[in-house]
Amino acid sequence: METIVVKVDSSSLLTPERIDKLAERILKHRSNGKNTIVVVPSIELLEGKLLPYSSIFTERIADRESHALKAINTQVASSLLAILLEKKGCKAVSLSGWQAGIEVVKSNGNILIEQIHHDFLLERIHNGEIAIVAGSQGYDQYKDLWTLGEGGPETTAIAIGTALDAEYVEILTEQDGIYTAESSVVKEARKLKEVTYDEMLELAHLGSTFVHPRAVELAKKYEMPIVVRSSTNDVEGTWIKGEVKMEKNRVVRGVAYEADIIRLTVGFDSYENSSLANIFMTLSKFNIDVDIIVQAVIDGVKPTVSFSIAKEDFAEAIKVLEQNKAQLGFSFADFEVGLAKVSIVGSGMVSNPGVAAQMFDRLRKENIIVKMVSTSEIKVSVVVPQDEMVRAANVLHDEFQLVEEYVN
Amino acid sequence: METIVVKVDSSSLLTPERIDKLAERILKHRSNGKNTIVVVPSIELLEGKLLPYSSIFTERIADRESHALKAINTQVASSLLAILLEKKGCKAVSLSGWQAGIEVVKSNGNILIEQIHHDFLLERIHNGEIAIVAGSQGYDQYKDLWTLGEGGPETTAIAIGTALDAEYVEILTEQDGIYTAESSVVKEARKLKEVTYDEMLELAHLGSTFVHPRAVELAKKYEMPIVVRSSTNDVEGTWIKGEVKMEKNRVVRGVAYEADIIRLTVGFDSYENSSLANIFMTLSKFNIDVDIIVQAVIDGVKPTVSFSIAKEDFAEAIKVLEQNKAQLGFSFADFEVGLAKVSIVGSGMVSNPGVAAQMFDRLRKENIIVKMVSTSEIKVSVVVPQDEMVRAANVLHDEFQLVEEYVN
Repeated sequence: METIVVKVDSSSLLTPERIDKLAERILKHRSNGKNTIVVVPSIELLEGKLLPYSSIFTERIADRESHALKAINTQVASSLLAILLEKKGCKAVSLSGWQAGIEVVKSNGNILIEQIHHDFLLERIHNGEIAIVAGSQGYDQYKDLWTLGEGGPETTAIAIGTALDAEYVEILTEQDGIYTAESSVVKEARKLKEVTYDEMLELAHLGSTFVHPRAVELAKKYEMPIVVRSSTNDVEGTWIKGEVKMEKNRVVRGVAYEADIIRLTVGFDSYENSSLANIFMTLSKFNIDVDIIVQAVIDGVKPTVSFSIAKEDFAEAIKVLEQNKAQLGFSFADFEVGLAKVSIVGSGMVSNPGVAAQMFDRLRKENIIVKMVSTSEIKVSVVVPQDEMVRAANVLHDEFQLVEEYVN
Repeated sequence: METIVVKVDSSSLLTPERIDKLAERILKHRSNGKNTIVVVPSIELLEGKLLPYSSIFTERIADRESHALKAINTQVASSLLAILLEKKGCKAVSLSGWQAGIEVVKSNGNILIEQIHHDFLLERIHNGEIAIVAGSQGYDQYKDLWTLGEGGPETTAIAIGTALDAEYVEILTEQDGIYTAESSVVKEARKLKEVTYDEMLELAHLGSTFVHPRAVELAKKYEMPIVVRSSTNDVEGTWIKGEVKMEKNRVVRGVAYEADIIRLTVGFDSYENSSLANIFMTLSKFNIDVDIIVQAVIDGVKPTVSFSIAKEDFAEAIKVLEQNKAQLGFSFADFEVGLAKVSIVGSGMVSNPGVAAQMFDRLRKENIIVKMVSTSEIKVSVVVPQDEMVRAANVLHDEFQLVEEYVN
């Protein structure tokens, strides 16, 4: 019998009615003859309850206890779902991270899944039980409990799917799949039938937040198929796989955007003084994430480097540059606000060198000024004025005929 | 360095201020050079939070999930205390049942501690950490989590104390020790300096509920000394040990009472029809707890048996007797309500045969009618009219000079 892993979204656990509906969805997998493992995220049950104890929390809480408390909400969520499944006559068990055999390891302040000791999960399956795993938690070699951080529940689901050699991992979200663009911005956005892991990674990094990149990376590594589906409507979703059928040989699969970009430009008096490495190492030391980097190397002109950062990092970046001016050796720093990034994504680009040109051509025809450009094998990003962002996304969606994508 | 185990009462965890005070108490043990393990009981944090999900709970919840949810409150309690201890600059870790290595086993519907795998607790001690164990929980061989039920936290403390070869176990309660009688009933009640395990067992079974008999039994088995102390005032408490010094050779150590006793009497037509075994086996099958049993065997008179039960079992007992009348073979059943039990307890009674006689004599002088009598090696109980209960307790407290007991 094939096994599937279902990752639940937290909105499905908000009310008894929704949990009931969720239970029906899970039972449907069972009646289709699949062993089912469910991974639940946290529901914030304890929040208000700990308020009377807030004075205890005023100072920095020991990391270990903060994780222990976080883990508990998820355990309650898994118990609630197990209770409802039992009520419906199905054998179900809630499992905390250690009961599910999820071993984690601390690495540079991050908690990573080291190994799934899957014997106990297999035993549950052989007993005909549905295992409800508290997602995003595991134990280390000292038996300490840690939570995985962002993307933890999806990552847990993929890891369990891999360890149990599951057929696929189903991720339930508030949206019913992955779209060619965000429908709030591009009205003509269409649901994709399939995307590749790489495409999904680019889309996820660009704001399509239904599946965390961390989970997609893990799925890519172990070639675990994912299907993203609606938690409320039982309709077809989007498959995320290693290779997808592209009948129409479509090169671009999606358009993504990101608002509130700021461009910083740093200029040097001479090439001798300019050290890009120094600048970006200093910024990274202060956790300032630099996205697009453009270096202008024009003969006879003083060298400059431009890079884009997110709005919220702006003040800190300026401060860091000022404080380290002497050491970094630059002579001036300049900035431009009110920018946005628009990207096209598609695995087919690798073998289609004309795609970027087609993109620039259409933007020029539409009189949308391109301030910066960045390309990868499956993505082209441009930085444009923010008030042109929505129009840019729409014309690119039109240019690459994404409206012809699959909808069900 | 000696190790001690401190069992905390739930009232000490009610507010941040109380937790703070508790933390100071624990730190005091540390500064006295003791390794300290703390065992916390449940605080009912989740109660209200689960109300929105109450429709899920309407039917009988699977046993396993009910235990899993119960265990969580205690884990939160242990985290809160650990956080506060860390804040005070002390290394502290919260430990769930499995992290503390508490293995349990299910036996006739009860959850019993099977073994403490103490390696991890020892490691915590060697790291100089204070371990805060979520009391009353453990895991079985399937990694399932179970809670111990009544007396669980104290029993956990004794079990850990035994496994770690602790010097003693300190039990913090709302009262500052074990008294010769309940002070609300006997004004002259005095705090005992020491009691034996057996005396404590009798007192505990008779309503002195600060230390559950289950924990005392375990302590007796492994000869683990217990000290019962106030959680709010740092004063001397009462030691519970195998042997106690009795300088004044006091025979009676305490007076206990229990209100709302009912006497049932069952009569038979002939000896041939009377089967005590049948009656008490039938009652026990319906979980009706019978306390004192008196069989009147008078020649020429029809045989009768009287026994005492608690008020809350009365309706059920009558129903059971009625429904099984034919099979049990009795000819009539009678009852008397409005009774109470008063007992004197003391290890010294074993070698002092006159104690019961002295008790009856004093009660007769006070015109208190004795309805039933029961004796054990260290206890004499009498059933008296309930409106004489308080007076009986007081005159016996006086008769055996308990006012001369230790007070600090």
